[in-house]
Order: sequence, then structure tokens, then C-alpha cells
Amino acid sequence: MLATVFDDEFHPLGASRQKTKGLYGAKAVLGRIQNTIEAALEDARVSPSKIAGLGFGCPGPLDLNRGIVLSSPNLGWHNVMLKRWLDKHLPFPSLVVNDVDAGTYGEYRFGAGRGARCLVGVFPGTGIGGACIYDGQLIRGTSMSAFEIGHLQVQPGGRLCGCGKSGCLETAASRLAIASDIAVAIYRGEAVIMRELAGTDLTSIKSAAIAEAIKKGDATVSAIVRNAARLLGVGVAAAVNLMAPDRVVLGGGLVEAMPKLYLEEVKRGMAPATLPTFMQDVHLVTAALGDNASALGAAALASESFGKRSRN
Amino acid sequence: MLATVFDDEFHPLGASRQKTKGLYGAKAVLGRIQNTIEAALEDARVSPSKIAGLGFGCPGPLDLNRGIVLSSPNLGWHNVMLKRWLDKHLPFPSLVVNDVDAGTYGEYRFGAGRGARCLVGVFPGTGIGGACIYDGQLIRGTSMSAFEIGHLQVQPGGRLCGCGKSGCLETAASRLAIASDIAVAIYRGEAVIMRELAGTDLTSIKSAAIAEAIKKGDATVSAIVRNAARLLGVGVAAAVNLMAPDRVVLGGGLVEAMPKLYLEEVKRGMAPATLPTFMQDVHLVTAALGDNASALGAAALASESFGKRSRN
Repeated sequence: MLATVFDDEFHPLGASRQKTKGLYGAKAVLGRIQNTIEAALEDARVSPSKIAGLGFGCPGPLDLNRGIVLSSPNLGWHNVMLKRWLDKHLPFPSLVVNDVDAGTYGEYRFGAGRGARCLVGVFPGTGIGGACIYDGQLIRGTSMSAFEIGHLQVQPGGRLCGCGKSGCLETAASRLAIASDIAVAIYRGEAVIMRELAGTDLTSIKSAAIAEAIKKGDATVSAIVRNAARLLGVGVAAAVNLMAPDRVVLGGGLVEAMPKLYLEEVKRGMAPATLPTFMQDVHLVTAALGDNASALGAAALASESFGKRSRN
Repeated sequence: MLATVFDDEFHPLGASRQKTKGLYGAKAVLGRIQNTIEAALEDARVSPSKIAGLGFGCPGPLDLNRGIVLSSPNLGWHNVMLKRWLDKHLPFPSLVVNDVDAGTYGEYRFGAGRGARCLVGVFPGTGIGGACIYDGQLIRGTSMSAFEIGHLQVQPGGRLCGCGKSGCLETAASRLAIASDIAVAIYRGEAVIMRELAGTDLTSIKSAAIAEAIKKGDATVSAIVRNAARLLGVGVAAAVNLMAPDRVVLGGGLVEAMPKLYLEEVKRGMAPATLPTFMQDVHLVTAALGDNASALGAAALASESFGKRSRN
């Protein structure tokens, strides 16, 4: 987890980063959240009384209106009243938002999405997050975040997904899907370069190692990642056919590690599935802000929600 | 084509309906448009000087900013400067909009979509039109209408589409797709009841005849339509996974002729392809206004664009 303190022009004044350690349960994580925020304030030498508010980007699904984490599989959280807890333990107001919404909004305000009329953000990671900013506003559901591009069905009858359906885009094109395909290939005796770097443990098959294996000439890994990126393009095509965005930003660890490959293959996957006139109008770009996108986006959304506070 | 004159509370004062007869070319159609508008004004006994403006719903793709019909396959139109022509020949301003956008907006303002936070409209016909109203505003592209649900790719490697791609939803679930499947079945000696009603000519296989055949017990036709409606549900699922709407309205001739069948099968198609939490939150309804939806929606959009004019 990363906490950053910004001034009212969104210049970073200080930050703190800690491991989440979700396996110790929600209570322990909440304690670490408080520590991280306090450490960031200390690093920034800013008193809590001068903070206008906190924007909190959190993996979903969330009840956005009440700031409840309904379920966060990677944390093992269920119905955690995050906003209530933050309001109780911090002397400033909080806004709980979806982390991909925050990241896409960060790119929209400060990064690769600046000036877009309609921006679609696609972040392949453990799952595949999506978000859309239309006319300056995040597209959202009645109580939850929307634009669940990772759960578009791209392979009817395909792999079971954590959401309960099968054939979702993220079962075929997320980092986890890629890692499992790579592990299978290693087990079969292929992907020799990757075997040296990571073995068959999914936990070790990370974006940087994948990129390194491809750079060193591992053709099997290259084929697996390119195939997944093309499938990602099919999901992006669906979003483009509906929203007709002028820009799509790709982000997350995989894209950061292999930006050229992703731009190439996502375009290749989009082309046969996107309405030609919409394909002409959309620019595909990679994210510019890395990790900072979510912090900046969450801060900007909080600032719009709570306004600025005088620093005196 | 249908022209309706509304007062500033959208009560119809008069109307006129004429055949489009696209095969005689754009010039002839434009002449008929002028006649139809004049006949509607006469029917309403309203002087053109009292008209605040015209909303014109037209099949796309359109250049919405300049009011140009870029291409309208069913009319054989290419780059027809519709707005310029209307401005030249009518004494009031015109707004050219996509017909499905107009129909969905009509249902949103006056019909089955009233009060929706986010409304998705899906109209299977010759093709499959889609539209989305989010927070009271039509989702649109930079210069064109958006939400091309008919061009979502649902069958990679499937039938060629008029758009140049293959496997688009409308190649599998439009009225034209259904009619062609029925014609094939009749040719094979199946769909005996339908054969009596229509034969193998696609032009004769219309929504009313299809509904009648199903009512009379044509099991083959029933299976074809139900299969297409389930596939339509897969397209609707994609829209729901992205927009998380609170309501989806189904309209058009097929749905009007078989509302119960469509509600049932679209739901059945959606269920395995829609994120469960979004599925819970969305209400699937059928359109309430029939043909009048487009006229009402176009008029409402024009009214918002041009304001009201005093009737004195």
C-alpha cells in the first residue's frame, strides 16, 4: 500500500509505502493503513489538521455510497466498513473509490489521458480492471463501480472465473492467466529460459520476469503473452464499440514491463472486432504515471468531493 | 417515415406518415421528407413560424456535429448533407440525431425508461441498434453516435457483417439474421407453418408473421427466434458488465410482436455472461411507446437544443 500527501496543486509532499500483508486479516490491515497514512504525513511534515481529505483507492467490488468493501478476494475481505473506520480513526473526511477508477482518473487528470473526451482505462494484473471517464466524469453503477471489462465473456465455456461465471476476459488474459499458461508450458518442458527465472510456481512468475524471459528469447513465453494481449484487444474492442472513446490507456505491471508488445498485440486483437470508423478515431496509449496514477487520481477525486483546505 | 408536430409539453398535435421509397435515390427521399413535414404541419394546423425546431432521427452512421448521413445502407445514402438541406428548405432549425438514440431517449423521457439513472436501449431490427443514456445524457462519440451493440463480436469467425467485420451480434440476432435462418429451415422442409405464411423470401419474413407462426405452434421458428434472443442477451450482458445500468429497454418490431419471449430468452442469455452483482441490479423491460419513441425522443432532444418558442 502507498500513501502520498499532496498539496492543493497535486505536488507530492511526502509518501509512505508498506506491505499490505492481507493474510493477517482485516483488523491488522486497517492498523497498517493508519500507520502508512501517519508515516506519509510525517514524511511530508504536514499536520493532519491541514489535510482537506483522503481519497482511498481500493480493489472492489465496493459500495461506493457507503464506502464498504463488499468483497476483495486478494485481501480476503468481506463487507469491511472501510469509510466508517477511516472516519473514526482519522481527523479528516475520506472518499473510498475503486482503485482502477482512481488509476484511470489519475491518468486522465495528470498523465496519458489528459484532454481525452472519453477515456477507457484497461489494467491487466491479477485480474483485469477497467474504467471509463466520459466528459470528465467516471462512469459508475448505482452503488458500485462499473466498467468491469475483465468480466466480459470472451470464451463461452472457457475457464471458471472468481466471479462465478466462465470464460471471462480475465480468465484468459490477466497476469494470473498468463502465469498459469507459462507454468503449464514449463511443466511440459517448454519455456526453458522462463524455467530458469521462475519455475512452475505462479507466485514467482511476475511481470518483470516474464518480460526478461521474452527479452532473452523465450519464444514460448512470447507466444503466450502475445496471445493474451490479443485477447485483451477483443475486450477493448467491446468497450470501443460501445463508448466510441477517443483514447484508451493500457496500464499495470505487464504493460509497464512490455509496453511495445502490448500496444502491438492489443491493436492486432482489436482490429477485427472493432467497428472500423471507431477504430480510426481511437488512440491506444500506455499509462504514464505507473504506481502514482491511483494515488493522484484518488487525491483528485477527494479534492473534488471535499474541496481544498487552507494551509494556514 | 413519420413526422409528428408536438406542443411544448410534447402532446402530439398532428402527424403524417409516408413510405420512404429509398430506391428512388436521395433527392426523391429529401423531397418526400419535406412533403411529410408539411403534411404533418397541415394536419396539426400549425404554422411553420410557430415551430421551435425539428428533431430528425435518422439511421446512421452520422456526423452528428454537421448533420451529415455518412452512409445509410438501407437508404443507399452516402455523405448526404441532411442538416444543410433541412436548414435551406425549412424555416426552423434542425437537429439530426441517430434514430436509435432518439428512440431510447423517447423511452427515457416518456416511456419505459423514465427515472432510470442509466438506461441501455437495444432495438433488434434489420440490424441491431443500441443506445445508452447516462445521468440524463446520451452517450455519444466525438462526431458520431456510439453504443453500437449490434457490432459487438459475439461469434469470432462467424458471418460477414455489413460493417466489414465478421461475427457481429447483428449477423446472428437481428431480424434479418432470424429471417435468413427461417428461410433456410423452410428450404429444408422444416418450419411448415411459417412456409404457409411467408415462403423463403426474406422480405416476407417479418416480425408479425414470425410471431404468428410461433403462436400457431411452429417449433422450428420458435427455436430459431429463442436462440437469437439468447444471443442478444450475450450482447446485452457486455453492455451491462461495462455500464452497470439500472434498466435495459428492449424495443423494435420483433420485441413488440413477442415481448414475453424476448424478456425470457434475453434474460436467459444474459445470466451466464453478466457479473452477478450487476445482474441483480438491472431491470429488463420492453419499450412502451412503439413507433412514437423516436419522434418523441428527437423532439425532446431538439427542444433541449433550441429551447421553446412562444405559440403567439
